[in-house]
Amino acid sequence: MTRLRYRDAGNVLGLPAARWDSAFLRTCRGERAPHTPVWLMRQAGRYMRHYRERRAGRSFLELCKDSELAAEVTVYAREWLGVDAAIIFSDILVVLEALGLPLTFAAGDGPSLTRPIDDAAAVASLGAPEQSAADLGYVCDAIRATVRALPADIPLIGFCGAPFTLASYAIEGGGSRQFARTKAFMYGQPAAWHRLMERLVDTLIPYLAAQVAAGASALQIFDSWVGCLTRADYAAYVAPHTARLAAAVPPGVPLILFGTGTSHLIDLIAASDADVVGVDHTTDLADAWRRCGGPGRVSVQGNLDPALLLGPRDRLLAQADDVLAAAGGQAGHIFNLGHGILKESEPDAVRALVEHVHAATRH
Amino acid sequence: MTRLRYRDAGNVLGLPAARWDSAFLRTCRGERAPHTPVWLMRQAGRYMRHYRERRAGRSFLELCKDSELAAEVTVYAREWLGVDAAIIFSDILVVLEALGLPLTFAAGDGPSLTRPIDDAAAVASLGAPEQSAADLGYVCDAIRATVRALPADIPLIGFCGAPFTLASYAIEGGGSRQFARTKAFMYGQPAAWHRLMERLVDTLIPYLAAQVAAGASALQIFDSWVGCLTRADYAAYVAPHTARLAAAVPPGVPLILFGTGTSHLIDLIAASDADVVGVDHTTDLADAWRRCGGPGRVSVQGNLDPALLLGPRDRLLAQADDVLAAAGGQAGHIFNLGHGILKESEPDAVRALVEHVHAATRH
Repeated sequence: MTRLRYRDAGNVLGLPAARWDSAFLRTCRGERAPHTPVWLMRQAGRYMRHYRERRAGRSFLELCKDSELAAEVTVYAREWLGVDAAIIFSDILVVLEALGLPLTFAAGDGPSLTRPIDDAAAVASLGAPEQSAADLGYVCDAIRATVRALPADIPLIGFCGAPFTLASYAIEGGGSRQFARTKAFMYGQPAAWHRLMERLVDTLIPYLAAQVAAGASALQIFDSWVGCLTRADYAAYVAPHTARLAAAVPPGVPLILFGTGTSHLIDLIAASDADVVGVDHTTDLADAWRRCGGPGRVSVQGNLDPALLLGPRDRLLAQADDVLAAAGGQAGHIFNLGHGILKESEPDAVRALVEHVHAATRH
Repeated sequence: MTRLRYRDAGNVLGLPAARWDSAFLRTCRGERAPHTPVWLMRQAGRYMRHYRERRAGRSFLELCKDSELAAEVTVYAREWLGVDAAIIFSDILVVLEALGLPLTFAAGDGPSLTRPIDDAAAVASLGAPEQSAADLGYVCDAIRATVRALPADIPLIGFCGAPFTLASYAIEGGGSRQFARTKAFMYGQPAAWHRLMERLVDTLIPYLAAQVAAGASALQIFDSWVGCLTRADYAAYVAPHTARLAAAVPPGVPLILFGTGTSHLIDLIAASDADVVGVDHTTDLADAWRRCGGPGRVSVQGNLDPALLLGPRDRLLAQADDVLAAAGGQAGHIFNLGHGILKESEPDAVRALVEHVHAATRH
C-alpha cells in the first residue's frame, strides 16, 4: 500500500487558504515560500519561564492531560518565538500509558515504565488498539483548543512516537544508551517483536487519524532512537512497520519522519514515503537531502545542533547560516534543530535564532 | 608534524619475529595474514565468570590498580577466547583521576567524577602532565606482567581515551547522552576548552610512550563519544588535538583510532594518520573503508553489533559473515565488535564467534 504523497494530494482537507498557503505547508509540499519556515522541537518547554510557571505544582503528565493548559503552552510558545508552526504539547509515551504500561516522569530522571515488556505474553496483555487510541482523547481536545487559538495562517503539527522508539521504551523501561534489551528481544523473540510493532502501529493509525480530525495540519513521527540499528536490522525489523504507519496517514497531511544518528539510514527512512525527512545535527544536510532523492522528491527539516543555544550568539547565528547554506536556498527546507531544545537554553537566544532565519531568507 | 605510519616504519622496536609476524600486527600493516585476526573490545569483563570471581570484594578501580590481577584477567580472557590480541585491563578514566579529579564507579551506575571541570581555573588546577602520567605506573606494571605471561606471538594492545572523550567525562562529571555541558563549555569558553585539550594531550603523550616502553605492541585511542559532534565542530575543536596525540605515538606501533556514531566523521578521523580506523556497528564497513582511503591506505577494525551476542546463535554468525563480506576478504581487516561486549552476553556465544571468524577466514 502506497500513500498519495502530500505534494500530489492537494487541499483535500479543505484548509482555509491562509493556512494552506503558509510558508510551513508550502515548504512541506516542496513549493517556494516567502521565507524559510522555522519551528523548533520542544519549543514549549522548560527553558521558557511561561512554561515553568504553568508546570509549577503539576507533574509533566498532568500538564499533558490538562487540554486547556497544554493548548495554552503550545500557543504561547509559538507566538513568543514567532515560529511558523506550532506543535501540540504532549509526549510520545502517552501511547504506552494508554496501552496499559504504568508511566512516571521522575524529576530530572526521564521517563520510567514500571512494567516493561519482556515476552510475548506481555505483548498480548497490552490494551486493545482502538480503545487505547480513544483513551488519548485529551490530546485531541488539546489540539482542538489550540487550533481555535492559533492565527489562521499557523498550522499545528500533531505527532506520535514511531513503533521502534516506542517499543524500545516499552522494553527498556525507560531511556537507554545501548538498547541491549531491545535488541535482545528483537533478535531472540522475533515473533513477539513483530507482534509488538504491529500492536503499536494498530494503535498509532487511529491516534494520528484522530489528531488530524481534531485539526492537526501536519504530523511528525519521532523515531528518535532508531539510529542505534544497522541498515540490515532497520530493513528487517522496523521499516515494514513504519511504512505501514506512514501509508495510513490521511491524505492531505504532510508526514515528517524524524530520527537522530540516522546518517547511515537516511535513504531507507525516506523510502517510507515521508513528505519531509527530519535530519539531526550530526548528519550533513546537503548529503542527506541528496541521498533521499533531493528537493524534487522530498522536503527536509533540520538541523542545527541544539547545544549551540547554550553558547555565544555569534557562533549560533553563523552555524545557522551554515545550515541555510547546506540547504542551498532550495524550496523544501524547514529550519529546525537536530533534536529538542535543551532545558538550559537561553530564551532570548532561541528567539534571536528564529528572527535570524527569517531575516536571512526573506525575499 | 606527521608521524611515520606503521606500515612504513618497519620493526624499529625489534619485536620477536613471532609477534612481528602475528596475524594482528600484519593486518595493522595492511599485509595479508593466514586468517582474519579478531579481538573484542572489553573482552575481559563482567560477562565472564573468571572476571567476576577476581572482581569479587574489590571495586573496579581496585582491580585496575592491582597490576598482577589486572594482568591475570587480561591474559585469561585472551586465552579462553582464543583471540589474536590482548588488551590491557584498565579504564580510560584513570587518566582523569591521575590529573586530580576524584573518580568513583558506583555499582551499575557507571563512572562519576565528583568535581567536574567548569571553567579555566579548574583546567589550570589539573595536575602536571608528566607527573600525572608517571602516577599511572600501575598500568605499565600490569603491561609488563601481561607481556611476560602472553605467548610470544600474541601482541598486547595498550590504550587511552581520546582528549575529546576524556574532556566530556571531566566536564559532565560522568556519562551523558546530549553532551550539553561539554558543548556549552566548548562554545562558550573556547580558550579554556583548548587549554583542557592541550593538558590532556600533554598527559596522554608520555602515558602512551610509557605503555609502549613497558611492552605494548599496539595502541588504541578510544574517542567513544566524539560522534555527537558535527563535522565543523570536530574539525575546529577536536581534530588538531587528536592529530597532535597521534603524531606523537612512537614509531613502530600501530595506532587504532576508535569512536561510535562516527559515520559522518570517519574520513576526518582517518586523516589523523591512524593506522587502523575503528568502525562502529551503525556505520557501513565497506563504505567507511572507502571513505578512509581504502585498504591501500589504512586498515579497519569492526564492526559487529555487540547486542547480537544476546540473541540466537545463527543470527550472530550470519551477521559476522556479513561483516566479513563487507570487508571483502581484503588484507587489513581486524574483526571486532562495534563497541564493547555487553555484560549480559553469553560467554559461549562470544567464544563461538571468535572460532567462527577464524574458521571462516583461514586459508
